[in-house]
Amino acid sequence: MLHPDRGFDPNPAVRDLARSLYQRVRNLPLVCPHGHVEPRLLAENAPFPDPAELIIIPDHYVCRMLYSQGIPLEKLGIARRDGQPAEADRRKIWQLFGEHFHLFRGTPTSAWLKHELEEVFGVAEPLNGRTAQRLYDQVAEKLARPEFRPRALFERFRIEVLCTTDAATDPLSHHQVIRQSGWKGRVLPTFRPDRVTDLLHPAWRTEIARLGELAGREIGSYPTFIAALESRRQFFRSMGATATDHGVFSPHTHELAPAEAESLFQRALSGQASESDAARFTAHMLMEMARLSCDDGLVMQLHPGSFRNHNRAIHEAFGPDQGGDIPVAAEFTRSLHELLNKYGNHPNFRLVLFTLDESTYSRELAPLAGHYPAVRLGPPWWFHDSIEGMRRFRRSVTETAGIYNTAGFNDDTRAFPSIPARHDLCRRVDASYLAGLVAEHVLDPSDAEEMILDLSYRLAKQTYRLG
Amino acid sequence: MLHPDRGFDPNPAVRDLARSLYQRVRNLPLVCPHGHVEPRLLAENAPFPDPAELIIIPDHYVCRMLYSQGIPLEKLGIARRDGQPAEADRRKIWQLFGEHFHLFRGTPTSAWLKHELEEVFGVAEPLNGRTAQRLYDQVAEKLARPEFRPRALFERFRIEVLCTTDAATDPLSHHQVIRQSGWKGRVLPTFRPDRVTDLLHPAWRTEIARLGELAGREIGSYPTFIAALESRRQFFRSMGATATDHGVFSPHTHELAPAEAESLFQRALSGQASESDAARFTAHMLMEMARLSCDDGLVMQLHPGSFRNHNRAIHEAFGPDQGGDIPVAAEFTRSLHELLNKYGNHPNFRLVLFTLDESTYSRELAPLAGHYPAVRLGPPWWFHDSIEGMRRFRRSVTETAGIYNTAGFNDDTRAFPSIPARHDLCRRVDASYLAGLVAEHVLDPSDAEEMILDLSYRLAKQTYRLG
Amino acid sequence: MLHPDRGFDPNPAVRDLARSLYQRVRNLPLVCPHGHVEPRLLAENAPFPDPAELIIIPDHYVCRMLYSQGIPLEKLGIARRDGQPAEADRRKIWQLFGEHFHLFRGTPTSAWLKHELEEVFGVAEPLNGRTAQRLYDQVAEKLARPEFRPRALFERFRIEVLCTTDAATDPLSHHQVIRQSGWKGRVLPTFRPDRVTDLLHPAWRTEIARLGELAGREIGSYPTFIAALESRRQFFRSMGATATDHGVFSPHTHELAPAEAESLFQRALSGQASESDAARFTAHMLMEMARLSCDDGLVMQLHPGSFRNHNRAIHEAFGPDQGGDIPVAAEFTRSLHELLNKYGNHPNFRLVLFTLDESTYSRELAPLAGHYPAVRLGPPWWFHDSIEGMRRFRRSVTETAGIYNTAGFNDDTRAFPSIPARHDLCRRVDASYLAGLVAEHVLDPSDAEEMILDLSYRLAKQTYRLG
Repeated sequence: MLHPDRGFDPNPAVRDLARSLYQRVRNLPLVCPHGHVEPRLLAENAPFPDPAELIIIPDHYVCRMLYSQGIPLEKLGIARRDGQPAEADRRKIWQLFGEHFHLFRGTPTSAWLKHELEEVFGVAEPLNGRTAQRLYDQVAEKLARPEFRPRALFERFRIEVLCTTDAATDPLSHHQVIRQSGWKGRVLPTFRPDRVTDLLHPAWRTEIARLGELAGREIGSYPTFIAALESRRQFFRSMGATATDHGVFSPHTHELAPAEAESLFQRALSGQASESDAARFTAHMLMEMARLSCDDGLVMQLHPGSFRNHNRAIHEAFGPDQGGDIPVAAEFTRSLHELLNKYGNHPNFRLVLFTLDESTYSRELAPLAGHYPAVRLGPPWWFHDSIEGMRRFRRSVTETAGIYNTAGFNDDTRAFPSIPARHDLCRRVDASYLAGLVAEHVLDPSDAEEMILDLSYRLAKQTYRLG
Repeated sequence: MLHPDRGFDPNPAVRDLARSLYQRVRNLPLVCPHGHVEPRLLAENAPFPDPAELIIIPDHYVCRMLYSQGIPLEKLGIARRDGQPAEADRRKIWQLFGEHFHLFRGTPTSAWLKHELEEVFGVAEPLNGRTAQRLYDQVAEKLARPEFRPRALFERFRIEVLCTTDAATDPLSHHQVIRQSGWKGRVLPTFRPDRVTDLLHPAWRTEIARLGELAGREIGSYPTFIAALESRRQFFRSMGATATDHGVFSPHTHELAPAEAESLFQRALSGQASESDAARFTAHMLMEMARLSCDDGLVMQLHPGSFRNHNRAIHEAFGPDQGGDIPVAAEFTRSLHELLNKYGNHPNFRLVLFTLDESTYSRELAPLAGHYPAVRLGPPWWFHDSIEGMRRFRRSVTETAGIYNTAGFNDDTRAFPSIPARHDLCRRVDASYLAGLVAEHVLDPSDAEEMILDLSYRLAKQTYRLG
Repeated sequence: MLHPDRGFDPNPAVRDLARSLYQRVRNLPLVCPHGHVEPRLLAENAPFPDPAELIIIPDHYVCRMLYSQGIPLEKLGIARRDGQPAEADRRKIWQLFGEHFHLFRGTPTSAWLKHELEEVFGVAEPLNGRTAQRLYDQVAEKLARPEFRPRALFERFRIEVLCTTDAATDPLSHHQVIRQSGWKGRVLPTFRPDRVTDLLHPAWRTEIARLGELAGREIGSYPTFIAALESRRQFFRSMGATATDHGVFSPHTHELAPAEAESLFQRALSGQASESDAARFTAHMLMEMARLSCDDGLVMQLHPGSFRNHNRAIHEAFGPDQGGDIPVAAEFTRSLHELLNKYGNHPNFRLVLFTLDESTYSRELAPLAGHYPAVRLGPPWWFHDSIEGMRRFRRSVTETAGIYNTAGFNDDTRAFPSIPARHDLCRRVDASYLAGLVAEHVLDPSDAEEMILDLSYRLAKQTYRLG
């Protein structure tokens, strides 16, 4: 059912070039420098439980769309925080999904799922209300086989390296298990300290306490906090981490005087931090993280601009990451002025910028990446990790920043078996983009042949220092 | 002169698919859930007076462009408020239009007018300075015939339902005449209370007085005001209304305590309301209108972001709606936070969002519509109701919100005989968009066949509860 | 190596139409109403020194990209302010450029340079690390010939008129030399008073003193300042200027009371002006410049929205214009409200608006240009002077403003020998844009034939009153 030319420009001249560029990279290993796969999966290597738990329940793209059309999250098996029952019959959940699969027409979720069902699970008919139970059976039958366990899929997918995203306080025990298991798969942690740098995070005090335990001394002052973060960064590096990640509401950066930082930190310890305190502390911590990256070489990723848990009722009932995160307009030029002035010319610093506000691509991000040696542009993120989103990104930034100031692809997913689908779609879109430039005589064919390798493989490895 | 493939992607593979999708919907009835046709036209059913008064004088798209190139509005027959004479010779006005018709090259005005002249009036040559008088004669001759009266055109256009836009204080007498006339055309009012919810509207006090008369009691307090609005909404519903509409500068929403609402209302009654008072009252009234929509089921439309009457000299000389309305940047995520938190999960609430700021499509609107059950996205509005505008809309929102969180087409016009042209252009652009997705193997052909029916007909009916 | 169809849509139906439209304009004279060529070049008419100094060192597009990938500006021969040595070996600089020329893949710099090397200098092989020295020889050999001196190239390029950009205090002595030389080339100055209207410009006091000298009386008060500017405008006009240009951070406009203007001016004279003073004075000076333009007919250009010298370390070491200028979000609707209300309907006033924020194209700029008689839209500026940038501009503004409210092309360059490449690329993109509209049956072929002449030649001449 998957058409071999999917994602290519239908103009025959472009399509034929796209095909031939895509052929050069379709079987290249997958470099996965940023994502949300649970390392537990690969540590335990247990069978995936069932199709609904694999494909529907944890995927906020799927649940969000179904919810937007009036389907309660309980009916999708999402557990309520108050313990009230959610649908437990996985076949019913899958049936509901099948009956509403038309809602996803034209979305990347549809493209990824079709690829996953056919290429990973060998399913040969479309998902809808009539076929849902047959498909459930086929997928469930496959999941029981040893060759569908996580490590076997990892190898079959040709994953060269997979980076997870881990809290600063994570002991990385699953990563330790993987290392000690003798299995050769390269699975690396990424240092994400959001819960300890956001003074208003609900878990902040608990996390600070855990950070103190891990660091071996109580964190009662700002210098001990920074020292603990330094030591955690060192630990993450020792476990193979090459990057940090920072999910912040605003990318504003501003260094505080030590006494100010201390005073904010103390206010937070005593439960008195205000929203303004937290915003100022975050701006300062971005400066600190950049400073430490200059020292230890961890690539710094910045993911700003999401208004998290916009829908309070859903957040209270079901917790975070249920589709209620909505972007806001972003501003980078002024926001990053202080950080880039202090560290943007540093030869050891690398800052990968992401945005949910596409108007910043050509206005701010490409000019910043096309000037500061430290800056690279991350791939289209979240809502924009789609065919049109990837096209808009390349068309908006390449003419100012080139492709060599961009970071290659991130699959950014929790959905492990969708990884090949996501890389494949990006490789197709990039091949078609380059083919279009060749057909317009903007690029020589030989340039495009190099560039497709860069976009599909090399840039991700170089940007994230995974070589 | 009208080419059968106009508006289709010229790539033959896409064009052929677009043709076949378009054929499925070209003759479907027109669902017109939002527009500005005067109900008087259909109540009186009198002949249209002449070509200039039909096509030029009331069309701010036309007058705006001619004015931008130095043609005084008086020469287009627009009446001045001070009573100074405007051009009265309709043939001269038409001639001036013909001589400057090249200014509209590449604009939707040109596409709509060519369609209207050829398909509605049977004109077989292009409009320009040489042909203008001949065309005037041809159109004028048609206008005199009974089959060119409003009701006959309504039927010939296959309009299934036409919603007008009516002030809260409108007695809907034209709608009553239509109902009582025995004519079968379905013409419904829409409740638009802007003049009574905007405390600084020049007509506010007069309108409040009229509202009191219609409600049968003087409006001296905020509760009587709300009660009067509720009763007007009931009256509009009894006349067939299924929707309300709110044209506001900012989409900011915020509920006031009853005492605050009362105090703002009293300040306005005594002529003391400030700009800040008016802004806060509008934010509050959006909350109130959403609350009432949950109760009475009227679909709530929000049209924010136009800086009305930007050109004061033109406004003072000629009044509103003369082309001097200029958009500003819009913000929805924070602005609608309060409203969506209170009502966005309510099963009976539906909010149709419009924007003049295309940067909000992918950044805010599609994520909101792809999550909140209440939210639907209105079609590209005003300046964006154009070929490129419609393409940008679909390409920006579909991958996040799908098509089923969008509202179908609105012709949104005062220009009654241009209605078929506008629907036809949208059907063509949608057919071409879907054909492109089929040609890229993003959609199956059978999906596209369903979707073109949804986009051209079903979604408008469902969204506006016109079934 | 240059493909005859470069820049054209690869769809054969569109490409063939594009070819034929392009043929109509490819040899038309070049109208260059805005740019940064030094008039000294054409006054002295000396040979260009060498390939690196011609093509690399003064081009911030080139140096910026190389710097972003870690190449120090010193190695590109950029002089440091502190006198520390920069690379003096021009062949080494050229070699470095050749070795990194792949960084420019897909950028306009690459398209322009390939055109320049092949069409201007007759180079027949691609630039890279291996060919760099051979290409250096070939270009250097050409530069030594009389037919490669500036005036000969000016004539060979068929430049009909070239406008330079000149400080208000410039004595225009090079322009005088050109006039008196008997050479027929039309080279006109443009009045750019930024250094005297920006109270915080580092050179402000020196420039005010020079302005006084040129005006023949000391500038000790605001009225003498304005009188001096009026007299300089008259002088520029006497030297053929038809336009002014204003590079401001914000397009905000607001007229001050005379006493306020005087007080800000006095504070600046005494070295006490604050940032807020400077911002208010700039907003006021835009009003003053518009007022004077109504009187003297100079076309007013506004180039807002660049955060200049964002990278302080680079600015301190190398001075301005080294690639560290980063755009910020722009706002025109409110910002220009006061200016357009006072002067936007004036028959003698013309305001050409530029932006670095593409989100303003459809949201604010096209609606303003499609209404106010004074407003024209400048071509895509700086980062957006590119194939995709030009396409986005036309697709975003044409449907609202038409093409007749746009200003034709600006090459906007310091790089004299790149002028034909830039016009040629724009003519190709415009031809392809129009061909696409013909292929979609939005335009008649005969319309497109007129419009390509307008876009390539007539509009620039008319807009800038160069007839």
